[in-house]
Amino acid sequence: MKRSDCEALDRADPLAKKRKAFSIPEGMIYLDGNSLGVLPVNVPLRVAEVAQKQWGQTLIKSWNEHGWFHMPRRIGDRLARLIGAPPDSVIAGDTISVNLFKLLGAAAKLNPSRRVILSDSGNFPSDLYVAQGFRDLLDDGYVLKVVEPEQVMDAIDETIAFTMITEVDYRTASLHDMKAVTARAHAMGALTIWDLAHSAGATPVDLAGSNADFALGCTYKYLNGGPGAPAFLYVRPDLQDKVQPALSGWWGHAAPFSFDLEYRPAPGIIRNQCGTQPILSMAALEAALDVWDDVDMGVLREKSMALCKTFIDLVELRCGPHGVTVAGPRDMAQRGSHVSLHHPQGYAVMQALIASHVIGDFRAPDMIRFGFTPLYTSFADVWGAVDVLVRILDGREWDQPQFLARKAVT
Amino acid sequence: MKRSDCEALDRADPLAKKRKAFSIPEGMIYLDGNSLGVLPVNVPLRVAEVAQKQWGQTLIKSWNEHGWFHMPRRIGDRLARLIGAPPDSVIAGDTISVNLFKLLGAAAKLNPSRRVILSDSGNFPSDLYVAQGFRDLLDDGYVLKVVEPEQVMDAIDETIAFTMITEVDYRTASLHDMKAVTARAHAMGALTIWDLAHSAGATPVDLAGSNADFALGCTYKYLNGGPGAPAFLYVRPDLQDKVQPALSGWWGHAAPFSFDLEYRPAPGIIRNQCGTQPILSMAALEAALDVWDDVDMGVLREKSMALCKTFIDLVELRCGPHGVTVAGPRDMAQRGSHVSLHHPQGYAVMQALIASHVIGDFRAPDMIRFGFTPLYTSFADVWGAVDVLVRILDGREWDQPQFLARKAVT
Repeated sequence: MKRSDCEALDRADPLAKKRKAFSIPEGMIYLDGNSLGVLPVNVPLRVAEVAQKQWGQTLIKSWNEHGWFHMPRRIGDRLARLIGAPPDSVIAGDTISVNLFKLLGAAAKLNPSRRVILSDSGNFPSDLYVAQGFRDLLDDGYVLKVVEPEQVMDAIDETIAFTMITEVDYRTASLHDMKAVTARAHAMGALTIWDLAHSAGATPVDLAGSNADFALGCTYKYLNGGPGAPAFLYVRPDLQDKVQPALSGWWGHAAPFSFDLEYRPAPGIIRNQCGTQPILSMAALEAALDVWDDVDMGVLREKSMALCKTFIDLVELRCGPHGVTVAGPRDMAQRGSHVSLHHPQGYAVMQALIASHVIGDFRAPDMIRFGFTPLYTSFADVWGAVDVLVRILDGREWDQPQFLARKAVT
Repeated sequence: MKRSDCEALDRADPLAKKRKAFSIPEGMIYLDGNSLGVLPVNVPLRVAEVAQKQWGQTLIKSWNEHGWFHMPRRIGDRLARLIGAPPDSVIAGDTISVNLFKLLGAAAKLNPSRRVILSDSGNFPSDLYVAQGFRDLLDDGYVLKVVEPEQVMDAIDETIAFTMITEVDYRTASLHDMKAVTARAHAMGALTIWDLAHSAGATPVDLAGSNADFALGCTYKYLNGGPGAPAFLYVRPDLQDKVQPALSGWWGHAAPFSFDLEYRPAPGIIRNQCGTQPILSMAALEAALDVWDDVDMGVLREKSMALCKTFIDLVELRCGPHGVTVAGPRDMAQRGSHVSLHHPQGYAVMQALIASHVIGDFRAPDMIRFGFTPLYTSFADVWGAVDVLVRILDGREWDQPQFLARKAVT
């Protein structure tokens, strides 16, 4: 494989035209969109409009006139299409950790006779922390059982109240089989909570087809909603009116402006709202979703797999002698859209990459991680990143003016 | 009292110079800053910088380089001064409802042998909803006891685990005596949670001097942080390391980037953080606080009381015959910074006021509510608002072109 092969892949890429919708710094190869997506070019103007015109001029009336109050459900419906969910089943707001807590409460109350929460060691640690806090707050016999990712299926038995699993492993990119795990859970009388942090916008999630009970995710990675952008949660439609909200704030009340003293949950997904949401960040997210409305998730998946495969192939071809190994499955169909590499000097190598304007991240103890975001990552980016990595590992990067070094290879 | 008297008060007002720091729509008398504060003029540029330069150009590195990760504590320290709290005792983030849930969990675990939560019917209903959700989630004998506001002191006995009280009543503006209630609670072995939603930026709160245990509040009212701006919470320093976080996310972990599988709370106030915060909204809030750094809260309080007294005096003088009555205490020292009026046609009257560009809000069943925000409300605003109210009640407003009618009286 040569650089020209990557350029040819870019010319044939049906998503290549999307790149111009994003603001990508000149000379940078940004492979950290799995941590913080780049800025969509339409976002600053939208945020300025919401701040200066809506907040500044229309003030309090904007809650109705500019639809602020309904933003979480409007955004939820647009997210729904990307994760295989029907309308009125997704709501945006709060953080992924807070939404997880809500769903832990919902799942626990729907399976009240059981006390084991099943998760795996590949889950993002914060999810485990939230479950530990939930367990300790309730102090009612809940046990958090954490197994290895490959043991999940076998560990689902009739003691499990619900599973709490991140579909795509944040380290290895290994993809759980949502449909199979959910079917197994249901057969054993358990419910499922799916964290889509590394799935939404990266892989074609099929919540409805998998019959998943609950899901949640963030929007600041592949969906480019901005730093700390509001998260989302999903509840399967037939469960929605059975959910007893753990975080029962006025935005989830059936009549929030009647100011009753008693909580009465709104019908449907709305009851999963809690407090007033940050509208400027919400507006940025809403604008960021514009680019997604005509994206075919199947086409996205094809490109994602091709980007990952190209990267892995190039790394093995060119970096193998340097002690670099690829984490996670080799079958692209069993992976999400990032690739982690083990290297004994992973931290130093990533710092050198960043110094040369190839941006990925490091995950302890020895992983360097690269996210491939199909809407704006090009195959030429993949070539360029590996080229710099090779130069670093070969000891040939140090004598180059760093920025020029990067420019020279792109 | 004449219009010229109000103009004289404005000329003598030491805070009058602050008005130019805010963007107030031409021809509008905005008396709803107790619901959504106006736009500070420096906010749009700050938000644009964070979006375009920091997110757009520096991307993931901004978490460190532009201090995003520490925003909640930086903002917390600036808020601390305004509410009588020491450094490192306040953290910004999440919503007021979510923060209340955190503090319910903290207080419950610190007083484990008791099961009664005491609140009052003047609390903002969402606080009661959150407590009801907490009670039902734990399902462990907790009782939410709701008394009338004037019964709070007597209701604090040795059964109470903790009080959950909003310092300033969102309807009547009646101010609880934080120091006395806290002393009584402590004498009875109870803890206190104070909601400062209608206090922060409106009255000189003294958390340290009152020996309050926990507090929380929002920043989108008197602090002008923007629609749905991040909330805050306070934990008294000697309690901080005893708090067992109910919402235990990675931002509250002692080593968030070590990715341990076990939760280990950070020392101090930091453990009360949960998930990743919305940085654009956080940046707007941080900019909005610039105007506060040289504000003397005693001077603010003087003006607040003078605005409220002027309004009440004018209403009684000019609107009394129309069946308008003032809600809440007549002693300004026992009030917050808004005034509600009862009128049988309250809803219609407020719509007419809004149509004439005097913006307040309506609270069922018969209250029209006006917020007086000392940094930008003028005494001329007060005069103008009452003048329009009189014209409406007199039946003299309907035949005026509405905008011109408003312009004519200011």
